[in-house]
Amino acid sequence: MGLLVQKFGGTSVATPERIHAVAQKISDAQAAGHSLVVVVSAMGDTTDELIALAHQVSKNPPHREMDMLLTAGERISMALLSMALAEKGIHARSFTGSQSGIITTPSHRRARIKRILGDRLRAALAEGSVVIVAGFQGVSETKEVTTLGRGGSDTTAVALAATLGAESCEIYTDVDGIYSADPRVVPEAHFWKTIPYDLMIELAVRGAGVLHPRSVELAREHQVKLFVKNSLSTQNQEGTQVITSTPHGSVADASPAAGNSLASSQQSPPKGMEEFRVAGVTADASKVLVRVQLMRSTVMGAVWGVAASAQLSVVSPHFSQHTLEFFAAREAEEDWKKHLNQLILDGFVKSFEFEQEWVPVSIVGSRFSQDPTALCEIFETLAQSAISVTMGAASALAIHVAVPRNRADEAVQVLHQKFMAESV
Amino acid sequence: MGLLVQKFGGTSVATPERIHAVAQKISDAQAAGHSLVVVVSAMGDTTDELIALAHQVSKNPPHREMDMLLTAGERISMALLSMALAEKGIHARSFTGSQSGIITTPSHRRARIKRILGDRLRAALAEGSVVIVAGFQGVSETKEVTTLGRGGSDTTAVALAATLGAESCEIYTDVDGIYSADPRVVPEAHFWKTIPYDLMIELAVRGAGVLHPRSVELAREHQVKLFVKNSLSTQNQEGTQVITSTPHGSVADASPAAGNSLASSQQSPPKGMEEFRVAGVTADASKVLVRVQLMRSTVMGAVWGVAASAQLSVVSPHFSQHTLEFFAAREAEEDWKKHLNQLILDGFVKSFEFEQEWVPVSIVGSRFSQDPTALCEIFETLAQSAISVTMGAASALAIHVAVPRNRADEAVQVLHQKFMAESV
Repeated sequence: MGLLVQKFGGTSVATPERIHAVAQKISDAQAAGHSLVVVVSAMGDTTDELIALAHQVSKNPPHREMDMLLTAGERISMALLSMALAEKGIHARSFTGSQSGIITTPSHRRARIKRILGDRLRAALAEGSVVIVAGFQGVSETKEVTTLGRGGSDTTAVALAATLGAESCEIYTDVDGIYSADPRVVPEAHFWKTIPYDLMIELAVRGAGVLHPRSVELAREHQVKLFVKNSLSTQNQEGTQVITSTPHGSVADASPAAGNSLASSQQSPPKGMEEFRVAGVTADASKVLVRVQLMRSTVMGAVWGVAASAQLSVVSPHFSQHTLEFFAAREAEEDWKKHLNQLILDGFVKSFEFEQEWVPVSIVGSRFSQDPTALCEIFETLAQSAISVTMGAASALAIHVAVPRNRADEAVQVLHQKFMAESV
Repeated sequence: MGLLVQKFGGTSVATPERIHAVAQKISDAQAAGHSLVVVVSAMGDTTDELIALAHQVSKNPPHREMDMLLTAGERISMALLSMALAEKGIHARSFTGSQSGIITTPSHRRARIKRILGDRLRAALAEGSVVIVAGFQGVSETKEVTTLGRGGSDTTAVALAATLGAESCEIYTDVDGIYSADPRVVPEAHFWKTIPYDLMIELAVRGAGVLHPRSVELAREHQVKLFVKNSLSTQNQEGTQVITSTPHGSVADASPAAGNSLASSQQSPPKGMEEFRVAGVTADASKVLVRVQLMRSTVMGAVWGVAASAQLSVVSPHFSQHTLEFFAAREAEEDWKKHLNQLILDGFVKSFEFEQEWVPVSIVGSRFSQDPTALCEIFETLAQSAISVTMGAASALAIHVAVPRNRADEAVQVLHQKFMAESV
């Protein structure tokens, strides 16, 4: 039994009772012979509450101080978890991002991990302690406290697993694992016992919402054995494993109830060897379609440059002649507008529009890159339900279309029906 | 030593001398203890010559008869190779696609493999024979002879390896393996000893030209151990292995001359754990940019439907409001024009243009999906060389831009310089 990295999100440590339940899980894993590094997020809505507090104090809080403030959240949960473990007679030591040697880029609120030193963690493990690490935080080379932004705690967990050579990394969340669609929208969605890294990344980018693409990309590169498990349910203990691909010759149970192994379950007839495979259908209501008209095509670089410096993320960007299109996070809309208005003043941008009413719906799978068949079927399927489409594109692992916000769930339902029924 | 599938392309069996050289390679592998299934293409330019002959006989040869004609090509090379092996005292038996039980879809000239029976191959292997299989061909369920279209022989080889449970599949070609750019354009291009399946697929889609994406997609799904090797050179015997990803902790030689293992060579500083990685830069001069103006957005499905029925492939399709854009194969231009003109007559399409002067240049790697930094750097780099860009887009594994055809090589050079210098 080797080293296990377990990550518990905010919901899993939201109350003292849940913290005790997490301590019990840790105790069980230790009893089974594992050494443990446990990554925790701040309790429940703590981070949001701290942000609200900051905005009551200051209209425009400095990012450095915001990071100082927010990192208190994990400090609380990790100390409480260590205490709960002490109650069980388990020796645990908590470490901040800085104490763990999680070295990041200097960007406050959206730092990226450069490397992890981890000396103190290794020493604590060597003395037999359970190591508790604050997720979501790090320290820059100039010793400033930073936070990692979206997906930060998952990324901390995977980066630690990679650095410390852990046997596996378990991300505990409030769902059973990965489904072929959101089960609240599509009750017959398939549960995947295993899913390949690249399709998991694509599902995450397209709004599947369980894991953040950053953490899966890191896991893929370092071949971290990654699991998504439910910390609250006692029913499905297995969760979903993110894998390279199903080994040749392995046989998967094709019954959706029992869970499928994506890749091998679809090798046999009636689907041919070269047919496309579908991993899932997603809608991402947190996104908004942005269209920007440029003064001239030579300023495209300037627009991306502004977005890059402001660390605004773009999903599915496309540009042609004088038009840029992409999906932006709704929560970043004000930020975008500020920068785009400046670009108008600078004479780079002619106009822009935020098309609130359109959201991306995506089909994630393989073999989408060259064959227009899937594109055609998507349009036919949506047309049959009279759901309109304003834009879209296909890449190797996904096809996305923008559909009306109030029809997005229905679009997911009919596309799931069409493509998953054919696929499994 | 287990079963090995080796595939030799047209160049490798172009002359009697080369056929003898291939026989020698097979003999060596057999002496090393392997059982062998060998897939061959038609000799040299045979297929093109047969197509030319057909067009001298008929203006519009029926596809069924074309397949009957073309499949003679591999029949010749496989019989000759069996004879060359007999000369060495090696018992070999050749099998057509039909005899091998390669069951395909019914589409002539562009069939896809549905499954492989392979009973006769297994029997021949069991009796100790070297099995020679005609690449590129199969048979439909109604017993019509079919050909597999582009990438057909590679796909035959991988499908056989998957079906027969081969230890590995070696694709012999006339280059040493996979580079980060075409070495004729970028002499300092890095040679990859290993490359992950998904990046290999993306490089192939973007015109890297060594393997066809179909065959790599199949290899990925069935976890076929895939190698690209040079059949002509005696210098680099190792070739490139297509892998799931570099195992955690493995150390790669970072010297370009010695070859890199993409993924692990870039884990350590100065590149951070979360920086983007670049696998290669490609230009695809065989493509042309197509722009289609629709009469109304509701007819988008109809256009893809026509392309799908005509089995025309599209690369990087994008549509927004009334405009579709994609890259098409130059050789399919007449076919496309015929169908698009019909769509004009049908009242679906307003106009279309083939922009001959623009070709796609792509950067393939990971972490391109959300961060606009790479997009910005591409524009800055091209602007410094005064290379204009008319359109482009980013997906998870690649960013492509359309640049002037006569500047494409230069674009590859400056982008390779910028991104690979930073990456390795």
